[in-house]
Amino acid sequence: MSVYPDALRDEVERYLAALHFRSAAPQTAGLEEAMRYSLLAGGKRIRPVLALATARAIGREPAGVLPLAAAIELIHTYSLIHDDLPAMDDDDLRRGRPTCHVKFGEDVAILAGDALYAEAFRHLLAEQAGEPPRVLAAATELAAATGVDGMVGGQYLDVAGVGDTPEELRQLHALKTGRLIGAAVVCVLLLAGMDEAATNAWRRYAAELGVLFQIVDDILDVTGTDEALGKPHGSDERLGKRTYVSHFGLDGARELAVECHGAARASLDEAAPAGAADLELMTDFILTRTA
Amino acid sequence: MSVYPDALRDEVERYLAALHFRSAAPQTAGLEEAMRYSLLAGGKRIRPVLALATARAIGREPAGVLPLAAAIELIHTYSLIHDDLPAMDDDDLRRGRPTCHVKFGEDVAILAGDALYAEAFRHLLAEQAGEPPRVLAAATELAAATGVDGMVGGQYLDVAGVGDTPEELRQLHALKTGRLIGAAVVCVLLLAGMDEAATNAWRRYAAELGVLFQIVDDILDVTGTDEALGKPHGSDERLGKRTYVSHFGLDGARELAVECHGAARASLDEAAPAGAADLELMTDFILTRTA
Repeated sequence: MSVYPDALRDEVERYLAALHFRSAAPQTAGLEEAMRYSLLAGGKRIRPVLALATARAIGREPAGVLPLAAAIELIHTYSLIHDDLPAMDDDDLRRGRPTCHVKFGEDVAILAGDALYAEAFRHLLAEQAGEPPRVLAAATELAAATGVDGMVGGQYLDVAGVGDTPEELRQLHALKTGRLIGAAVVCVLLLAGMDEAATNAWRRYAAELGVLFQIVDDILDVTGTDEALGKPHGSDERLGKRTYVSHFGLDGARELAVECHGAARASLDEAAPAGAADLELMTDFILTRTA
Repeated sequence: MSVYPDALRDEVERYLAALHFRSAAPQTAGLEEAMRYSLLAGGKRIRPVLALATARAIGREPAGVLPLAAAIELIHTYSLIHDDLPAMDDDDLRRGRPTCHVKFGEDVAILAGDALYAEAFRHLLAEQAGEPPRVLAAATELAAATGVDGMVGGQYLDVAGVGDTPEELRQLHALKTGRLIGAAVVCVLLLAGMDEAATNAWRRYAAELGVLFQIVDDILDVTGTDEALGKPHGSDERLGKRTYVSHFGLDGARELAVECHGAARASLDEAAPAGAADLELMTDFILTRTA
């Protein structure tokens, strides 16, 4: 029995592998190499697969949202490169390989992240088919989801040491992780021209999914093996970060994850009453994953 | 006699000062502070003023492109913050004040740059009036101008030490500086729905202006005073960078600047045969500026 929509992941992987980042100057090949090194390091491709699965759930062709899905994965990759920098989490390993700055130097890693972000928007705006007002709406959502009221704002809360209460922690992760995961769902609805009211149950689903993802991440940082994670576990504790585990203990965090999974599945049933097999699989996978 | 379109600059300055970057979490105020510290550090606002002046030159209301103009200045500010980082040029002073990372720490500076880029697109996409296909075209141009075949690609060439020949140097600066200056002109034409053929003379003007800007920058790094520049002069030589001065000497670079100014004015005359007073002023200013 499949526990992940592997066909969708393969489709994403092939699409990403075919992307090139070139300029009028042949010497920018070194920048492209660093971008592709980090982009093509494998992983479950959770965000782009979510986008394709959402498209299918609302009766659209998954391949039709590949440019959007790729843009989201480019942005996710850029955020990992910048998070790993010495001035941030200072991580040397990611998915079992040296991080971008270890491999290419800190200056190139900063620029590879910057370039991935720019190329994400260029790709989405230039390549995503759809009526212009809908493409605009999706791109606006993606920009908002990655700005101050989104991923980068959440990353700031993290470096600023916010998270002393469970409420603060939830807010931090809703921004840092939740908004981009949410955008993978919501941008597809906007591209499809779904009207605002109809998106509500979907938004609740996406929000729960983001929190679920983070709780499990915190648990895996404690219980995962270095080999499965592709990096040393226990980094949250070493960095003195507040996590769901530090707040609630391992058992408490596990209970929370199960509750959150239930809430996500309930919202998904409401959003897609006729069923959404790929998204159900994804939601279960995000709870039960081991890396 | 005015040597700069000060009224347009004041309009840009007021608009930028009114921008806020907030999230659902009150603690991101610290990120907003770092973003506004760098954004509101003064300067001639050459890129956004160019956008407003271009709007006027093609018979449109300058204020109508303020969201686009602001987005461009946010992006310029982000590029300065990242350029100044210890892993890049390692500059401590900018416009007479401590650079962002000196004032707020390297982690916050990286994130302030990232956030300014996201907020630039969010602002442009959400606030810029215009027919959706035109807003899309302008945003696509801006994303391309700041990606691998643009600003960040040029920055990569710079850190990679490209520039041994004058041709390589011109290509480096065409990407690093020229593309964003060009976008300040071209995006306004795209927003106005100007057809491709009509944009050609404008594009030549924008390209010459970008090169002119850079030649003068290289000259000022040698001849400017620390006080006027707001940072120590001579940083190019200290960093071993190839510049128009290192290639052609000071007199050679000055001659090149004058030639380039002439070519820019000729293209401008062709693009705007009825005259474009603000842009003529800007073009002259970029040649004769002392900081």
